[in-house]
Amino acid sequence: MTDDSRPILGIGMVGYAFMGTAHSHGWRNARSFFDLPLAPRLAVLGGRQVERAHAVAERFGWEQVETDWRALINRDDIGLVDVCTPGDSHPEIAIAALEAGKHVLCEKPLANSVAEAEAMVEAAQAARDRGVRSMVGFTYRRVPAVKLAQTLVAQGRIGEIRHVRAQYLQDWLVDPQVPMSWRLEKDRAGSGSLGDIGAHIVDLTQFITGEQISGVSAMMETFGRQRPQPEPAAGTGSKLGGHVGDAESAELGEVTVDDAAVFLGRFTGGALATFEATRYATGRKNAIRIEINGSAGALAFDFEDMNVLHFYDADEESSSAGFRRILVTEPEHPYLEAWWPPGHLLGYEHGFTHQAVDLLTAIAEDRDPEPSFEDGLRVQKVLAAVERSATKDSAWTTV
Amino acid sequence: MTDDSRPILGIGMVGYAFMGTAHSHGWRNARSFFDLPLAPRLAVLGGRQVERAHAVAERFGWEQVETDWRALINRDDIGLVDVCTPGDSHPEIAIAALEAGKHVLCEKPLANSVAEAEAMVEAAQAARDRGVRSMVGFTYRRVPAVKLAQTLVAQGRIGEIRHVRAQYLQDWLVDPQVPMSWRLEKDRAGSGSLGDIGAHIVDLTQFITGEQISGVSAMMETFGRQRPQPEPAAGTGSKLGGHVGDAESAELGEVTVDDAAVFLGRFTGGALATFEATRYATGRKNAIRIEINGSAGALAFDFEDMNVLHFYDADEESSSAGFRRILVTEPEHPYLEAWWPPGHLLGYEHGFTHQAVDLLTAIAEDRDPEPSFEDGLRVQKVLAAVERSATKDSAWTTV
Amino acid sequence: MTDDSRPILGIGMVGYAFMGTAHSHGWRNARSFFDLPLAPRLAVLGGRQVERAHAVAERFGWEQVETDWRALINRDDIGLVDVCTPGDSHPEIAIAALEAGKHVLCEKPLANSVAEAEAMVEAAQAARDRGVRSMVGFTYRRVPAVKLAQTLVAQGRIGEIRHVRAQYLQDWLVDPQVPMSWRLEKDRAGSGSLGDIGAHIVDLTQFITGEQISGVSAMMETFGRQRPQPEPAAGTGSKLGGHVGDAESAELGEVTVDDAAVFLGRFTGGALATFEATRYATGRKNAIRIEINGSAGALAFDFEDMNVLHFYDADEESSSAGFRRILVTEPEHPYLEAWWPPGHLLGYEHGFTHQAVDLLTAIAEDRDPEPSFEDGLRVQKVLAAVERSATKDSAWTTV
Amino acid sequence: MTDDSRPILGIGMVGYAFMGTAHSHGWRNARSFFDLPLAPRLAVLGGRQVERAHAVAERFGWEQVETDWRALINRDDIGLVDVCTPGDSHPEIAIAALEAGKHVLCEKPLANSVAEAEAMVEAAQAARDRGVRSMVGFTYRRVPAVKLAQTLVAQGRIGEIRHVRAQYLQDWLVDPQVPMSWRLEKDRAGSGSLGDIGAHIVDLTQFITGEQISGVSAMMETFGRQRPQPEPAAGTGSKLGGHVGDAESAELGEVTVDDAAVFLGRFTGGALATFEATRYATGRKNAIRIEINGSAGALAFDFEDMNVLHFYDADEESSSAGFRRILVTEPEHPYLEAWWPPGHLLGYEHGFTHQAVDLLTAIAEDRDPEPSFEDGLRVQKVLAAVERSATKDSAWTTV
Repeated sequence: MTDDSRPILGIGMVGYAFMGTAHSHGWRNARSFFDLPLAPRLAVLGGRQVERAHAVAERFGWEQVETDWRALINRDDIGLVDVCTPGDSHPEIAIAALEAGKHVLCEKPLANSVAEAEAMVEAAQAARDRGVRSMVGFTYRRVPAVKLAQTLVAQGRIGEIRHVRAQYLQDWLVDPQVPMSWRLEKDRAGSGSLGDIGAHIVDLTQFITGEQISGVSAMMETFGRQRPQPEPAAGTGSKLGGHVGDAESAELGEVTVDDAAVFLGRFTGGALATFEATRYATGRKNAIRIEINGSAGALAFDFEDMNVLHFYDADEESSSAGFRRILVTEPEHPYLEAWWPPGHLLGYEHGFTHQAVDLLTAIAEDRDPEPSFEDGLRVQKVLAAVERSATKDSAWTTV
Repeated sequence: MTDDSRPILGIGMVGYAFMGTAHSHGWRNARSFFDLPLAPRLAVLGGRQVERAHAVAERFGWEQVETDWRALINRDDIGLVDVCTPGDSHPEIAIAALEAGKHVLCEKPLANSVAEAEAMVEAAQAARDRGVRSMVGFTYRRVPAVKLAQTLVAQGRIGEIRHVRAQYLQDWLVDPQVPMSWRLEKDRAGSGSLGDIGAHIVDLTQFITGEQISGVSAMMETFGRQRPQPEPAAGTGSKLGGHVGDAESAELGEVTVDDAAVFLGRFTGGALATFEATRYATGRKNAIRIEINGSAGALAFDFEDMNVLHFYDADEESSSAGFRRILVTEPEHPYLEAWWPPGHLLGYEHGFTHQAVDLLTAIAEDRDPEPSFEDGLRVQKVLAAVERSATKDSAWTTV
Repeated sequence: MTDDSRPILGIGMVGYAFMGTAHSHGWRNARSFFDLPLAPRLAVLGGRQVERAHAVAERFGWEQVETDWRALINRDDIGLVDVCTPGDSHPEIAIAALEAGKHVLCEKPLANSVAEAEAMVEAAQAARDRGVRSMVGFTYRRVPAVKLAQTLVAQGRIGEIRHVRAQYLQDWLVDPQVPMSWRLEKDRAGSGSLGDIGAHIVDLTQFITGEQISGVSAMMETFGRQRPQPEPAAGTGSKLGGHVGDAESAELGEVTVDDAAVFLGRFTGGALATFEATRYATGRKNAIRIEINGSAGALAFDFEDMNVLHFYDADEESSSAGFRRILVTEPEHPYLEAWWPPGHLLGYEHGFTHQAVDLLTAIAEDRDPEPSFEDGLRVQKVLAAVERSATKDSAWTTV
Repeated sequence: MTDDSRPILGIGMVGYAFMGTAHSHGWRNARSFFDLPLAPRLAVLGGRQVERAHAVAERFGWEQVETDWRALINRDDIGLVDVCTPGDSHPEIAIAALEAGKHVLCEKPLANSVAEAEAMVEAAQAARDRGVRSMVGFTYRRVPAVKLAQTLVAQGRIGEIRHVRAQYLQDWLVDPQVPMSWRLEKDRAGSGSLGDIGAHIVDLTQFITGEQISGVSAMMETFGRQRPQPEPAAGTGSKLGGHVGDAESAELGEVTVDDAAVFLGRFTGGALATFEATRYATGRKNAIRIEINGSAGALAFDFEDMNVLHFYDADEESSSAGFRRILVTEPEHPYLEAWWPPGHLLGYEHGFTHQAVDLLTAIAEDRDPEPSFEDGLRVQKVLAAVERSATKDSAWTTV
C-alpha cells in the first residue's frame, strides 16, 4: 500500500514482560512519529511461553513468534536482536546474536557480573569490526530533559562540576506483603536496587557530566529478608512487582539481593557525589533525582516530573537569578520536533521510542550507537566496586 | 496469526493533521495496552491530499486511504467514523455518518455554532434509537488526574462547591511573526482561544463538578490583528502553529478570532467561577489549570504537570492538613492498571488511547458513551453566551 | 547611653489589635535593622480598653498609653499618627491628625466609602502643602518579591502587559462555626472579602503594573449568611477570626458583607484581568497570587511562598527558557541589604518594618511617601465600581 | 509603667555579629509575642570593639555594654550568659559563666573539638546540680516545620525509619573572589562546612528521628585553597561573608577548612543515611533539606521553603495518597499560637525567638532545656568521626 523505499531492518525481540512491552511500543512508535532512514519491521517475538508471546505479539503487531531464542537470532529476516530478558541471560543471547552478525540492543544492566560484561564487550568489539552494532538500553538517557542536561553540561553552561547528588527512589517493597519475584533473587537479577535502579543513576550521572566515577565508598542493606511467594498470574507484564512466579504456596522466600544501596563517589573531574538507590523510599514511586552543581551553573531533574529540567545560570545578575523551570517540550528540545506542540507532555515510554530512533539512525549511518557495551561495562564496574566497598566497611574502592 | 475471536470494528478517520495523528495513535494503542471487548481495525484514513494521507496511513498502519469522506462513511467495512477535521466541517460529516448508521467520534468543538450543534444533537438522538453511538472528543476528561478529580467530587470529598477557577493558557501567539493559520480564521475555526481551548475548560469544569454553568459575564480581545501568511509546508502536522496554508507570499492576513477570552460564571450549585483562555500567556505552554474549592476539600490540577492532582481534605486535622500531591500513576487510578509501574508517567497522547478504550467499551456494552453530543452542545451554548456577553459590555448572560 | 544625634520622631499609634501588633513590631525593627535618617520613638499607644492597651504597650515598648485618640493626636511629643483601627474610624482620626499637623500612616482600606476617602485625600493634599506627609498602609507592596516584580516591570522586562490574574484566597470562613466579628459587619468593615483582601490585590496589581484598572465586571456572594456570636476574649489580637465582640450569647449574627468577590477588569494599557477575593477557598490560607503576562516576559507570585518570585524572560533562547524561581533574599534585592545572608527567609511582619523605613525616609527627605491617600482612593473607587457592577448583573462599570 | 510582676532574668550576651544580631532580636521578641513566665531583660552586651558594641546595643535596646566578657559574667544583674562568639572561645566563656552560676546559652558548634566539648559537658553537669541550666543553640530545631516533623515521628506516623537524606547547601564560596574570613580559618572556626552547617543537619536528623548516628564513612574537600584577604569594614554583621578582617592588602589567604563534606551514616535504629554539607552548591542559598522515609510514612523539608513540611502518610488509600504540603502556620502548629493568622509566614529569625522562649520557660520551670550540652557533644563526636573517616580513605568510623 505504500511506496516506502527505505531499507527495512527486521527486529527480533527476546522477552515480552515489562521491558518487552516498552520496547515493542518503542519500535512501533519510532516509525510513526519520526522520519527514519531505516524502517524497523516487528518481525519476530521470542518467548518461551508461546501463548503469552502470541498475546503480546498480537497486541503490538509482531509478525511471528519463536519460542527458541537461538532460532530467532539465526533467522535471515532478522537484522537486529533486542534482548529484553532478565540479566542472567543477557551475555549468552547477546554474544550469540553478535556472532550471528546481528545488531544487538541489550537491556540494562548489561550483565550480572563484570566478567560477563567484559565478555560481551569483547564480542561487541569483534562485531564492530564487521559493521555490527551494539547498544545497551539505558533509556533514561533518552528522556528529553536528561539529554538537555547533558547538552548544557557539554556546552559549558554548568562549568567545572563540583557536586553530584543522585537518587533513584522507589517504594514498592515497603509493604511486607509484596511477594517474591525474580528481581529479588540474586541468581536471576544479579543484585537488587543497586543493579536494577542504581545502575541507571550511575549511567545517567556519567552521561550527563561526561565524566567517570573513579571510586566509591558504599553501604548496602536488605530491610526485608523474607517475602511471601507469589500467586501465579498472567498479564502483559508491565508492572514491577508482577506475579511472575510458578509457586502457589503462601510460603516465604528468601530475598537475596539488596533493598537499598548508598554510596559516596568521586568523579574524574574532582566532583564529590552521593548516590542512593532504594525500593524502600516510602512515598517516592520512581524518583530519579539528579542534581549537579558546577562553577557556572546547576541542574536538577526528577523523573516524577520528567518533562522538566531545572537550570541555574550563575552568570545571571543575582537580582534576577534563579532556577529556571524549563518545560522540555519545545521543538528545539531533544526529540521534541517529532512530537506535540509545546506544553503537551511526554511519558515514560517515549524514551523507548527515542532509543529505537537513535539506534536505527546510527545503524543507517554506519556508526556506533551510544551507550555502547563499553559504557555498560563501566557501569558494571562501578556497581562491582560498590559491592566490594560495602563488604569492606565502606572502605574507599577504586573502580 | 492470532486466535482473537473478539468482534472487530472498522474505523474510518477523516483528517490527518494534529488531531488525526493523536487519534491514530490512540486507536492503535488502545488495542496494545487494554483488554478490549471490541477490536478496532484502522481501516480507512480519509484525507483530501492523497500523498499526505498515504504518508500518515503508512506511519500508523491505516490500511487504506479515501480522498472523499462521503465514500469513506459509506463503506461497509467502516463501523465508526472519527471526525478530525476543522470545526466547520463537523456537522456535515458527523450527521452524514450517523445517518449512514456509523458510530461517530467527533473532535471538539462539536460545531462552530449552537444551531449546527443542535442539528448534530438531533442526528445523534435519532441515531441513538437505532443503537448508533456518538461521542465528542473532549479527551482531557481522560487524563487520569482529571478523571480522579471527577471521582473525588462525585464521592463527596470536596463537598459543596463554592469556587471554580479555570485557565487554559498558551503563548504561541505572543511572537508577532507566528503566521496565519486556519485556527485564526473565524470562517474555519468558529472562534479563537474561546472555541479552541476555552471549550476544554468549560467542559472540564462541568465534567469534574457534575454541574452546569448557568450564566456568564465576559470579555474577549484580539491583541494581534494582523499576521504574516505562512509558507507552504508538509509534515505530520502534529504542531499547533503548523504551516498549513497555501499562500506563498509574505502578505499579512487578518486575524478574525479572539486571542483571549476571560469570563465570570455561575455554576448550577451556586459556585462562583472565573475562566480565562488565551494564547498570549507568555511562558505558559499548555497550562490547563483548574482549581475547585468546596465545603469539604479542594482540588488543583495543571496540565503542565499532568500526572499530578493536588487534593486538600478539610477533614484532616489542621495540624497535618495540606494539599496532597497525588502522583496519579497507581494501579488504582483511572486507566492506570493498563500502563506502567507507579511513578512512570503518562503523556499527552494517552488521553486519546483512553478515549478510544471508553468509546469501544461503550459500543460493545451497548450504552451511550460520554461526553455525548448533548454535552458538546452544552459547551457550545456556554461559548455562545460568552460571545454575546462580550459584545454587550459584559452584561450577565444566561446560558 | 548613646550618642545618637539623629532627629527623633514621636509615634502615636491608635489601635492595638492585629494591625497594631504588626505596626508596633515594624516601628521597633526599623530602628534595629536599618540605618534610618530619623529615629522613631514608640511614644504613645492609643486604645479605649486601658488594660489591653497597657499590655500591648508593655510588650512592644510603647512609653505611654492614651485612651482618647484626640488627646493622642494633640500631644506635642507626637509627630506621626499611625491609624490601626477598623475602617469606619479612619476618616475622622486621619483627618484630625493631619489637621493637627501630624504625619499620618493609615491602615487600609483608606475608608469604607469613596466619599470618605475623597475627604481624606482633600485633607492630605492640604496637609502636604504644609509639609505634612500621609501614607496608606498597603504593606504587601513592601514584600521584597513584590517590589522586585514592580521593578522588573518598570525596567521593561515584562514588556507590554496583556494579562493579569490576581487572587487573594483565604479559607477561614469555610467552617460555619467561625463566629461573627467586626470584619463581617458592613457598618464596621465597609465590605467583606472585597475591602479586606480584594483591596490588596487591586493595589498590588496597579502597583506592579504601573497602570490603573479602568473598568470592571463583577459578582459578589455571601455563602454563610448567619454565624454564631463570639465569646468574649482577650489577647494580643494577632488573629483574624479573633474573639473581639462583647456578646456572650450563642445567638446567631447576620453577616452583612460579602464572603467572596470575583471580577473581570481592564487595565489602562489594555491588559485583561481576572480578580478573585474570597474567604471560602478551602485549603488556601493567605494565598495572594498574582500573575502577569507581557510581550517580553511574565511574573508569578504567591504569598504562601512569599520569598520567591517566578520570572519568565521571553528573550531567553527557547531551549533553555523557563520560569526562574528567584529566591528574593540576595543583598541586591529590595530591603534585603539590612537582613540576613542569602537563603534566610523573611516573614509576614517584615513588610511592616519596610513600611516604617520607607515612611521615615520619605519624611526625613521631605518628599511624599507612597502609596499616597490618592492611591488609596483609587483602590476605593475600584472597589466601589465592583460593588456597583455586582448589583447591576455584572454590567461593565467604569472606575 | 507596667504592673508586670513576673521575675526578671538579666541577659548578658557576648558577641554582636551575625549571631549576636539574631539573638538580640530573639530575646526582645520573645517578650513581645509570647506569654513568658520569666521576663528577659536585655541587660548587657559584651564586645571588644566598644563602638560597634554600642551601636548594636542602641539598635536592640541593650542597656549597657561591657568590653570584657569576664566582667560581664560576674555582674550580679546577669542571670544568663548568651555566648555568640566564634567557636574557639566557647569553652572558656561558657565554662566560666557556668561556674559563676549563670545559665548559659551557647551558640553552635559547642566547641571546636571533642575534648573541649567534653569539658563543657562536665561543667554543665556540675552546674546542673546547682540548678544552673545550659543549652546549645541549634535554633533550626525551633523552625515550626522542623518541630512538627519531630512530633510526627514521635507520634509514630512515619513508623520505623529506613532512610535519612540530609543536605545543607549554600553557594557563597562559588565565587573565587569571596574574601577570607574567620569562617575559613581552622584555628578560629574549627572546621568549614562540616562544623558550620554540617553540624546543623547532624543535630536536626538526630532530633527529628529521636535516634543517634552510630557510624560514618566520609569524604571532605577544599575546592578553593586560596582567597583574597578582605577589606576592613564595619556594619551590623548580619552577613556570612562579612568583612571582618583587619588586613588591607589584596594578598591571598590560605583556606584551612573544608568547603564540602559528604558522608554516609547509620542511625541507631538501622536507617541508612546520606549527608552533604557544602558552600559550593551553586544556586542553593541556604537549602537545609531533610528527607526521612519510614515504614509508615515520609517527611521532606527544605529551609528555602521553611514554612512548609511535606508529609506522606502510607496509611492513606493509594488512590488518594500523596505528599501533603503542610503550610505550618496554623495555631495548632508549634509556636504558631503566638504569631499571625494562618498563611502569614514566619522567617529565619523566628527560630531565635522560639529558642529564647523555650529556654526561659525551662529555667522558670526548673528543668533542663534542650538541646543540652550533651546533645552538642554528640554532634561534635559525629563531626570528629567524619573527619577521621575522611582522612582514612572513607573507612567506616564508629561515633
